[in-house]
Amino acid sequence: MTSPRIIVIAPDSFKGSLTSIEAAQAMAQGVQRVWPDAVCRLLPMADGGEGTLDACLHGDASGERLRTQVRGAGSTPCDAQFGIKQRDGKAVAIIEVAQVVGITDPAGMAAPVGQRTTIGVGELLRQVLDRGVRDVMLGLGGSSTNDGGAGLLVGLGARLLDASGKTVEPIPDQLQRVSKIDLSGLDARLGQSRLVILSDVNNPLTGPLGATAVFGPQKGVTAGLRAVYDSAIGRFAESAERAFQRTAQNLPGAGAAGGLGFACRLLGGTVHSGAEVIAGLLQLDQALQGAGWALTGEGRSDMQTLHGKTPCIVARHARQLGLPVTLLSGSVDRAALPALSEVFNGCFSSSFGPASLRELMDDSRALLADAAGQIACLIGRTM
Amino acid sequence: MTSPRIIVIAPDSFKGSLTSIEAAQAMAQGVQRVWPDAVCRLLPMADGGEGTLDACLHGDASGERLRTQVRGAGSTPCDAQFGIKQRDGKAVAIIEVAQVVGITDPAGMAAPVGQRTTIGVGELLRQVLDRGVRDVMLGLGGSSTNDGGAGLLVGLGARLLDASGKTVEPIPDQLQRVSKIDLSGLDARLGQSRLVILSDVNNPLTGPLGATAVFGPQKGVTAGLRAVYDSAIGRFAESAERAFQRTAQNLPGAGAAGGLGFACRLLGGTVHSGAEVIAGLLQLDQALQGAGWALTGEGRSDMQTLHGKTPCIVARHARQLGLPVTLLSGSVDRAALPALSEVFNGCFSSSFGPASLRELMDDSRALLADAAGQIACLIGRTM
Repeated sequence: MTSPRIIVIAPDSFKGSLTSIEAAQAMAQGVQRVWPDAVCRLLPMADGGEGTLDACLHGDASGERLRTQVRGAGSTPCDAQFGIKQRDGKAVAIIEVAQVVGITDPAGMAAPVGQRTTIGVGELLRQVLDRGVRDVMLGLGGSSTNDGGAGLLVGLGARLLDASGKTVEPIPDQLQRVSKIDLSGLDARLGQSRLVILSDVNNPLTGPLGATAVFGPQKGVTAGLRAVYDSAIGRFAESAERAFQRTAQNLPGAGAAGGLGFACRLLGGTVHSGAEVIAGLLQLDQALQGAGWALTGEGRSDMQTLHGKTPCIVARHARQLGLPVTLLSGSVDRAALPALSEVFNGCFSSSFGPASLRELMDDSRALLADAAGQIACLIGRTM
Repeated sequence: MTSPRIIVIAPDSFKGSLTSIEAAQAMAQGVQRVWPDAVCRLLPMADGGEGTLDACLHGDASGERLRTQVRGAGSTPCDAQFGIKQRDGKAVAIIEVAQVVGITDPAGMAAPVGQRTTIGVGELLRQVLDRGVRDVMLGLGGSSTNDGGAGLLVGLGARLLDASGKTVEPIPDQLQRVSKIDLSGLDARLGQSRLVILSDVNNPLTGPLGATAVFGPQKGVTAGLRAVYDSAIGRFAESAERAFQRTAQNLPGAGAAGGLGFACRLLGGTVHSGAEVIAGLLQLDQALQGAGWALTGEGRSDMQTLHGKTPCIVARHARQLGLPVTLLSGSVDRAALPALSEVFNGCFSSSFGPASLRELMDDSRALLADAAGQIACLIGRTM
């Protein structure tokens, strides 16, 4: 009697077509179609962006998914979810910024970028603290805001003041007026909290590589407003740094999520690779124990993949345990194959011939299942 | 010390982009890039069509490639190659009909289909007999002619006669006039010869599934002439059957190569799967001995692949020896995957993401190498 053959299936999302859960399910379906007695351990991954919450709660019976209402990017009420997981006997909250100020949320996007705020993220964080949780993971990907994290601070009790002591709204259009920040109302529980920021962005807060210059355009910052907002955020940042008595503008990741990274750093948050932290949270190593193979993937793999993206993290963990790991993505940049081949035991696309990007995305679930099945045909010889 | 890991690489041609030799070389290059100590045994395959001669002579130091001049499809002089291989101490000639009357030969195609003839194939066959060779393989694929094989018979010494005893030319436009065939001049050496016809076509000579109806259009037979030629060939065929005192019109393969199959059958030729015979000639089984894996492929794989196409034959031989065999084609029809998966250990396309057919074909060599390398990354774990 041989032991069952175990395959760990740990993809990221296939952006624009499949969540990581859907991708993992499609892969598992394909594997089991050709290999019915294979045991597939599904571990849908995430990197801190959209889908992080779902991935963190997937298959965790003790994990709680909570729903609440906070202010969205446009300051109108927004239904947001967050999660609480038990880990080593301690509660860990998972906040996905995209749940509150997601770039795919039409309500938030309806407001001009100059008026969007992360205040709701601060409100959500307070609700987490209200529940007694002091370990917080904050996934920064996929935000529509560019407020330097001013909203977050205000949501947590800080007050932005102008030269005459009047309150300033935490939106890009107003930040130029900030001359002082009053932290007396800042939620004191933050002092006893551990804030883990999930972000793969290393950009500083302002300047040519800053949040506004690099990520502003996709959020609606026009060329004419770029310098205006960059300077306004800089002004807010100086006041904030004075108030917190620490600097953070040029720390790596300060420019993540429209500067939300900066505010998180001021609050004492530490920046981590999203995929790496989530691998820990989801106990990837434990899932890999006793398995014979790992399968990972993402929408498109290229040289960026090797810079801490989910498939790369999965590969690192698998290889540390001596496990082969195969990459199956929607597409693979062939120029990156020599480098990818150092990390993966085979890099495959889910395409089976001539097809447009649209066709591949529309049919991604079936393609992924079919391709995973074919890889399993090969893997099956070896386990 | 472990023994070297041996991979047999036995693809068919990738029609429109790579010969089977080029395809095998690309695959081997890709395999050895990721796996420098792998031993690749290259066995470019063919199925009787274009490329058969090259594949049969590839890597055979004792094989001879001969060049001669015969009449092409348009009756003008045509440089044709044929091969002579030693097999079990006996000489075997390889004639690729496409070398004489190939559908990709502009000179032959310049003549209207009604005037094209296979007379040069008969002439070439005589030259083979002149060399003392009595074992002949005739690959029927890729012809531009539709003369019912009348030309072949005339090239071998037969005479077509009309009712008044006048000679009739062996071209479709004249066949209606044939009323008798004089075999007195037919090359007597044919009686001591073994004629092996390589063909995957099962069509009869005439009728709705016959040569003219099915293959005529791609050779230039217009709708208006279809019935005319079908009837003319039928008339010639009746005379031919009377002369040879055997019937062949409805034997499978009579309709191959515009009816050349019919004439070959009258001459006592036997029809065989091209890929199967070539697998024998190239000693595929011997190449597979001691190997750990086989890799095959073709331009496009679909349900037809399973009906005796090269990859299917390679798979059959590999599996008889207990060897896994992986399919790597330009594209794979996903609808055929369940059936293909019964035969192959993994079916892959050489595409890595969105791409048009044109792009895939233009870049086929590099794509194939890259894809073979990725498959080797997986295979490498197992050998």
